[in-house]
Amino acid sequence: MYEGAVQDLIDELGRLPGVGPKSAQRIAFHLLAADSSDVRRLADALTEVKLRVRFCDVCGNVAEAELCRICADPRRSTAVICVVEEAKDVVAIERTREFRGKYHVLGGAINPIENVGPDDLRISQLMTRLADATVEEIIIATDPNVEGEATATYLSRLLVPMGVRVTRLASGLPVGGDLEYADEVTLGRAFEGRRVVGG
Amino acid sequence: MYEGAVQDLIDELGRLPGVGPKSAQRIAFHLLAADSSDVRRLADALTEVKLRVRFCDVCGNVAEAELCRICADPRRSTAVICVVEEAKDVVAIERTREFRGKYHVLGGAINPIENVGPDDLRISQLMTRLADATVEEIIIATDPNVEGEATATYLSRLLVPMGVRVTRLASGLPVGGDLEYADEVTLGRAFEGRRVVGG
Repeated sequence: MYEGAVQDLIDELGRLPGVGPKSAQRIAFHLLAADSSDVRRLADALTEVKLRVRFCDVCGNVAEAELCRICADPRRSTAVICVVEEAKDVVAIERTREFRGKYHVLGGAINPIENVGPDDLRISQLMTRLADATVEEIIIATDPNVEGEATATYLSRLLVPMGVRVTRLASGLPVGGDLEYADEVTLGRAFEGRRVVGG
Repeated sequence: MYEGAVQDLIDELGRLPGVGPKSAQRIAFHLLAADSSDVRRLADALTEVKLRVRFCDVCGNVAEAELCRICADPRRSTAVICVVEEAKDVVAIERTREFRGKYHVLGGAINPIENVGPDDLRISQLMTRLADATVEEIIIATDPNVEGEATATYLSRLLVPMGVRVTRLASGLPVGGDLEYADEVTLGRAFEGRRVVGG
């Protein structure tokens, strides 16, 4: 056990995801030796994030106003909504620069083990957005795992009858990957989704 | 890139040791979803540690007063000083409950690659402490690696002529370890340091 303030900091750091007791101690000692201004910047960033950051009223993405940057951007098409699980998925997709529509952040995926049902996700908010007749397509971009697939199935059953085009991101071999090391499910999906070349 | 405050927090977290960009993002989103009071506690712990924690005037250990808990404790013997590299080594040794003397924290080890020489360590402060005639033994407990060994050699050359008993922590097989997996240097040390059993 350390003296009060050091132990308090180690305890608080140890509560962060992925930070074990050893890392918490290492970070605490790093901060002890760091410039006061660096530590103040971190403390301020923590305070600021809770003061300034909220969730977009429309899509649920992180925002610093009522609308997030993307919902507020008139150059983004309202015809296509890409549905993702988390705000970090928005960032991942934005990085591709492929998508120029809007997003909808569900806030998770259906997961019976962790007691997350459809009512815990921002699905009713998505339905509300469909009232806007300009929406032509919903791209379901939930994670390619059991929970993400279950959520995708649930959503497509709900959305298809509403007459909107519903698509799902392609599954297949990751680019730059090695066929030999692909798991059988991914390889199976790659076969299923094969495309005609040329011709 | 995220909106301002989120990205600022990710940047600050990413500067911590052992926290890569992915972990920084994960921690930031965890904090975004966490209670404001939890985040405030972490921000306060950071501020407090810089306000309240200082280094012991005598031994260099972390302290919340001029002297650390150990230097201020009259029940601890002043006859033996255990020299360690970092304050966290003090905690590790205290956990054994084997040692009842005082400590001296060097603040690192001699490391030519990182430009750390003897003058960068709290060695002169250690010499000053030897003026106290009650000091009988110096236990050198620097790390059993190249830098720690170099520092131990340097210190012993300096201390032995001063007529004080200088010892080094034993190297050998870790308790609970497996001889088969011990590296050759450790195994060599274990042979060198072998002891007579019984008789």
